[in-house]
Amino acid sequence: MKKIETVFSPAIFDNSMPFSENYVAVIVDIFRATTCFCVALYQGAKAIIPIVDLEILKQMKEDGYIVAAERNGQKVAFANYGNDPHEYLTNAIVGKEIAYSTTNGTRAIDKAIENNCSDIVIGSFLNLTAIADFLVQNQKDVLIVCAGWKNQFSFEDAFFAGALSECLIMNGFEPDDDATKTAVIMWQAGKTNPIATMEKNSSHLKRLLSLDITNTLPFAMQQDICPIVPIMENGKIHSYKN
Amino acid sequence: MKKIETVFSPAIFDNSMPFSENYVAVIVDIFRATTCFCVALYQGAKAIIPIVDLEILKQMKEDGYIVAAERNGQKVAFANYGNDPHEYLTNAIVGKEIAYSTTNGTRAIDKAIENNCSDIVIGSFLNLTAIADFLVQNQKDVLIVCAGWKNQFSFEDAFFAGALSECLIMNGFEPDDDATKTAVIMWQAGKTNPIATMEKNSSHLKRLLSLDITNTLPFAMQQDICPIVPIMENGKIHSYKN
Repeated sequence: MKKIETVFSPAIFDNSMPFSENYVAVIVDIFRATTCFCVALYQGAKAIIPIVDLEILKQMKEDGYIVAAERNGQKVAFANYGNDPHEYLTNAIVGKEIAYSTTNGTRAIDKAIENNCSDIVIGSFLNLTAIADFLVQNQKDVLIVCAGWKNQFSFEDAFFAGALSECLIMNGFEPDDDATKTAVIMWQAGKTNPIATMEKNSSHLKRLLSLDITNTLPFAMQQDICPIVPIMENGKIHSYKN
Repeated sequence: MKKIETVFSPAIFDNSMPFSENYVAVIVDIFRATTCFCVALYQGAKAIIPIVDLEILKQMKEDGYIVAAERNGQKVAFANYGNDPHEYLTNAIVGKEIAYSTTNGTRAIDKAIENNCSDIVIGSFLNLTAIADFLVQNQKDVLIVCAGWKNQFSFEDAFFAGALSECLIMNGFEPDDDATKTAVIMWQAGKTNPIATMEKNSSHLKRLLSLDITNTLPFAMQQDICPIVPIMENGKIHSYKN
């Protein structure tokens, strides 16, 4: 039976855990990197290149890349795009590679790379069923990596982990750690009204609202509007072709 | 209004969080250090001295201290006691100081000290109401520090954080982060049958059972059998006198 494990923050993702190259890592940063990745790739971007360092990103802009960057929830001045998913609903990115740096999402991806996960895919509510189908078909153990906020626990990422785990459990996967079981409890407690649950419990959402970013929640909670599997290969995330 | 925050693992307890000297830290290691501390002090031990390093502990034994130590869930060979709470139901500890080293609990205490919490108290189901009453009377912000297991998230500590938070919320405290709100959801989902909930969700419990430690759960879940407030002062934990 294939297992599901969940890491609630990159800070607790260390090598003491029983991860191996047999795990597929699902990176989750609902507010908002992985939601944006799904929109951009579904919209037709060729690839996302995750970049940690803003100086490198700046150089890539000079080299002709489209660049996206967010720090503390806001677009970085020199970037073409920030991490509002609505920005990626544009034909300007079709066929293009986007170099992308975010506070939390890229840190989670880096941790998955460091820990030798066999595959790294990108999850959000926008591609929930597509990711679940991919994982079921793949039949490897699953590791859900919540990006969190500055290494802290974030409700929205764990809530998604619960939604994804529920799909996988229905397909014979087994929750194998306390974090996954907790995520399932969170999802089951809130799934009849996900938007109200997020409004009540996500401090990250409150931060976005305080920055006058008001339409993030309903957009990010739309299930399956981008039915793709973003997968990392050779340092780039592209849409998986079966 | 006073706030409650919760740290799910010492690994995510860093200085980026808005902790100040106005916080009271509640250290939680249900399996089993903080449960043991409550039993030992209620039984009449004079103080617990948390010690990280086993070599120092060995020296303290030679200097005449009673010493307790656990590694990977089991008593260390040279120690007088391990971290089975039943061991402390003995008159041999009355009036004595116990030097105590555990895998996870002392790490959580150290983090609270590093982060300059004003007071550090010890929580378990055995003293739930006493701790809640103390915190309500104290009227400072509260930080619940879950010891976890080797820096990982543990169900039982977060479940207790939910129980304590519920008591505090009923007394006008406000949950101020996603972790506290999640803990409350966990507690509310499981509180009608805490033992079954723990059996289902705690992998730490399964580890103890695999070591043939079968009576930990019912003992650790007994609410309010040790109505004391263990508090840290000058490097020692003793029972708070009002």
